[in-house]
Amino acid sequence: MRTATRRLKHWGWGYEDQQPPRDQVEGIAKAVTDRLGFEVDEIEEPVPLDAVDLPEPRLKPPSELAGMFSAELYDRAAHSLGKAYRDVVRGFRGEFPNPPDLVAYPESPEDVDAVLNWCADEGAAAIPYGGGTSVVGGVEPRMRDDYPAVVTIDLKRMDRVLEVDPVSKAARIQAGATGPGLEEQLREHGLTLRHFPQSFEYSTLGGWIATRAGGHFATLETHIDDLVESARAVTLNGEWESRRLPGSGAGPSPDRMLIGSEGILGVIVDAWVRVRERPTEKVSCGVAYDDFAAGTEAVREISQSGLYPSNCRLLDAMESDTTSAGPPGKALLVLGFESAHHAVEEPMSLAQDICRSHGGDLGDVRRSAAQTPGDDPVNAWRSAFLQAPYLRDSLVACGVLSDTFETAITWDRFPDFHAEVMETAKRAVAEASGAAAEGRGSPRISCRFTHIYPDGPAPYYAVLAPARRGDEVSQWDEIKAAVSETVVDAGGTITHHHAVGRDHRPWYDRQRPDPFADALRAAKRELDPKSVLNPGVLIDP
Amino acid sequence: MRTATRRLKHWGWGYEDQQPPRDQVEGIAKAVTDRLGFEVDEIEEPVPLDAVDLPEPRLKPPSELAGMFSAELYDRAAHSLGKAYRDVVRGFRGEFPNPPDLVAYPESPEDVDAVLNWCADEGAAAIPYGGGTSVVGGVEPRMRDDYPAVVTIDLKRMDRVLEVDPVSKAARIQAGATGPGLEEQLREHGLTLRHFPQSFEYSTLGGWIATRAGGHFATLETHIDDLVESARAVTLNGEWESRRLPGSGAGPSPDRMLIGSEGILGVIVDAWVRVRERPTEKVSCGVAYDDFAAGTEAVREISQSGLYPSNCRLLDAMESDTTSAGPPGKALLVLGFESAHHAVEEPMSLAQDICRSHGGDLGDVRRSAAQTPGDDPVNAWRSAFLQAPYLRDSLVACGVLSDTFETAITWDRFPDFHAEVMETAKRAVAEASGAAAEGRGSPRISCRFTHIYPDGPAPYYAVLAPARRGDEVSQWDEIKAAVSETVVDAGGTITHHHAVGRDHRPWYDRQRPDPFADALRAAKRELDPKSVLNPGVLIDP
Repeated sequence: MRTATRRLKHWGWGYEDQQPPRDQVEGIAKAVTDRLGFEVDEIEEPVPLDAVDLPEPRLKPPSELAGMFSAELYDRAAHSLGKAYRDVVRGFRGEFPNPPDLVAYPESPEDVDAVLNWCADEGAAAIPYGGGTSVVGGVEPRMRDDYPAVVTIDLKRMDRVLEVDPVSKAARIQAGATGPGLEEQLREHGLTLRHFPQSFEYSTLGGWIATRAGGHFATLETHIDDLVESARAVTLNGEWESRRLPGSGAGPSPDRMLIGSEGILGVIVDAWVRVRERPTEKVSCGVAYDDFAAGTEAVREISQSGLYPSNCRLLDAMESDTTSAGPPGKALLVLGFESAHHAVEEPMSLAQDICRSHGGDLGDVRRSAAQTPGDDPVNAWRSAFLQAPYLRDSLVACGVLSDTFETAITWDRFPDFHAEVMETAKRAVAEASGAAAEGRGSPRISCRFTHIYPDGPAPYYAVLAPARRGDEVSQWDEIKAAVSETVVDAGGTITHHHAVGRDHRPWYDRQRPDPFADALRAAKRELDPKSVLNPGVLIDP
Repeated sequence: MRTATRRLKHWGWGYEDQQPPRDQVEGIAKAVTDRLGFEVDEIEEPVPLDAVDLPEPRLKPPSELAGMFSAELYDRAAHSLGKAYRDVVRGFRGEFPNPPDLVAYPESPEDVDAVLNWCADEGAAAIPYGGGTSVVGGVEPRMRDDYPAVVTIDLKRMDRVLEVDPVSKAARIQAGATGPGLEEQLREHGLTLRHFPQSFEYSTLGGWIATRAGGHFATLETHIDDLVESARAVTLNGEWESRRLPGSGAGPSPDRMLIGSEGILGVIVDAWVRVRERPTEKVSCGVAYDDFAAGTEAVREISQSGLYPSNCRLLDAMESDTTSAGPPGKALLVLGFESAHHAVEEPMSLAQDICRSHGGDLGDVRRSAAQTPGDDPVNAWRSAFLQAPYLRDSLVACGVLSDTFETAITWDRFPDFHAEVMETAKRAVAEASGAAAEGRGSPRISCRFTHIYPDGPAPYYAVLAPARRGDEVSQWDEIKAAVSETVVDAGGTITHHHAVGRDHRPWYDRQRPDPFADALRAAKRELDPKSVLNPGVLIDP
């Protein structure tokens, strides 16, 4: 397999061989100036791995398990950070303040059990790790100084589709399988999970479940939660395995307690997930609106119509412009229906009627996805979506701040909420960037809906601004704190699908019901009395 | 209000004035013999309330809260049992072995808090109570002898729709609102919850949430879980209130821990639920199949098609015959689509194509629901569905055993599972009833699907058999134990929507993951250290 010889970058997005050469980054720098109006005074080079210096590992693996551990510089550096902007910046500069002492690569649930129990015996923190694409500090060993050692447990060697049930349309898949890895194995059976988060290429099923990842579908199965039929985790109290059931009413759902637990209760090792036949019918359409508010009303009506589009992503004019998706100055709704069973022209036509009644300017309906980008707004946007994390690495080199935040809110509160969030974001970004809020070269703050529900949207905000070179982390942290305050004060959730991790803790702590936090802490103490499992995520032990 | 002067029967289904007179029960006895072939040797009369003798209450309410308590015979008797067959039989015979000492009727969350804290101070068990329609021993004070007193907390006075959000289509409703009560209040706004369990007339929103009740929709929002936007409970650690959010990914869902908690963590006082406009488009159709297996394949294909019928209930020939729903000797699929937004002829037509391809014999498609039963199989079945619990009271008088059990299982395992369950049920019912398994007057065991999922159905089994007069409880318990063993051994869930309560404990304990039970027990100890909240349900304290 080709990928066996490829290594992921130790600091940014993708494989080492995907790092763009200097002349490509220069092209990006030119586009940054031409399109965004940001001056690029210098293109920095990332600090190479051999210039990185890490403290010595504080713990040696036991001889009987030694084969599954690594204490190599590459492994430790590559597992030191997630993939938030603040992580990429630090990795780019060669800053790895909290490296794990060891990285374990178990190959079976028994291996996981052995590593975990050894960690507990040693009092070492144990961080379950999938693709490492956390954007909320979920895998960074920030507790390093409070523990005698930190061991990151990387599930990448547990990447197989173990069983396929073509009758019930379900598959048992190991936690370490990446998006492309599991889709490739499912394709042999004519099946697909169709869970495509932006991190799809590198993130894993176990990571999706641990963090309640959001996927491809704009309606119905928005989160991985909805696709989990049963899950299995290794805990320090033994195996947590739920039954394969299409539905149940037997007490609080065990799966729903594991889903979103971010590694604090155990290590997810595999899960039965609901898969489906690959869609044969696909239609998509772009709809332009003069303003975001009109598009919002159309989307609200669609969300309450029972039509369930697979794609229903509303981009504001700024987002549409940044990604060259739609006509200038217009909000763009990217609407799509798909089915493996029947034609979807009728629901598309009904949805278009709704779009039209709210003043939408309808583009052509395209059957299936066109194979090339170009002038198709739907494809243009999808391509930009998947390329964004790669591009971000070059933006860091060019001194451009690029990050996002996301939430969900009910429709009745959305207009005021959105206005408040945008106002806060504009002010905070201007203050933190020293750039004028308006005019050429001003920061770009845009919004889109990633998922919609009958009772409200999940708005996703993206920020592009001139970076304070060398001080990017503080710059973003200032912005992030300001917008998080507003999001939570105005009734939103601190995260719709990015998880809580360590970065969202102050606001999560205000959001969740106190007795629920009491219950979760008690559950944690019961299953992990020494508090070795991913300490500091979600709750304080 | 008319209902203010009506009182629910202290032992069976419905209001006191709905107890059928002697001549009507005689008519039922005749039908039992004519239609089922069971001999009715005697029609028993229920023991009247004034012949019921209960032990004296062991505790007096505190004077400052006295106004919300009752120690009356009626209140205590009526809160002594749920509404399972074993409960109705005992109530009918005047047997109330485990009465609460007091019944509290709080009128506000503050009242609930006061009662609950007083119970904790006294060490008295506190049983949250909605409509009392539990069929799993969920509200019966069986822990009576282990506690100095038992207080049942009946939420009936908290029955208001508090807020309506017509934009997000959501409403905040108090936990004690019954199905008709909340629907009547929502109707003023043109909205409906459309959660119609069989107990709809008497059960409450709080009860539905506490027990993960199953409702009207055969697909998508099958359980109340899916309709809860946020929930509020009074716990001994303070208020547990989640945020109103259309979706979230912030840690394990607090709502999903409360939903199904059956009163062991706190008392649910109100919830924001997702409502919708009343459907204006409805089509329904009966489809006959020569055998249940062919119908099953049709339903499986529908469940995986993405068509999402609102109704998709497959009755086996016995069930269809018992309820006079379809043509003799045939399995019947009751199929329906509804929408408040658009015509539903196309999805019905696509579903019918599936039905036909599996050998189904299609009846006429009816637009909307006909107003009278008669020859419409869909209406005939619905009417029988709602009348069943009333009829059961008379069946008890006639010496007919009548109860049900239900589960869920994936499609791949369903055929063998169903064969095993039917075999066990037939053997156990024959043994426990002393009746021949075949021929006139033999027990009737039937199956229908109440809900369907892409990965499997929720089969619901009904049993009608000659009762062992005076020994009905043991008779049913023998049957129930036998079928529960098979259901759980063969991979099913002990309950899809009847909850765990006390009756399902032995099998639930084998079904749930052990570390999850550890976590739940720890959470319970944290929130209720004296273990006063509904002890014995779900877990041992």
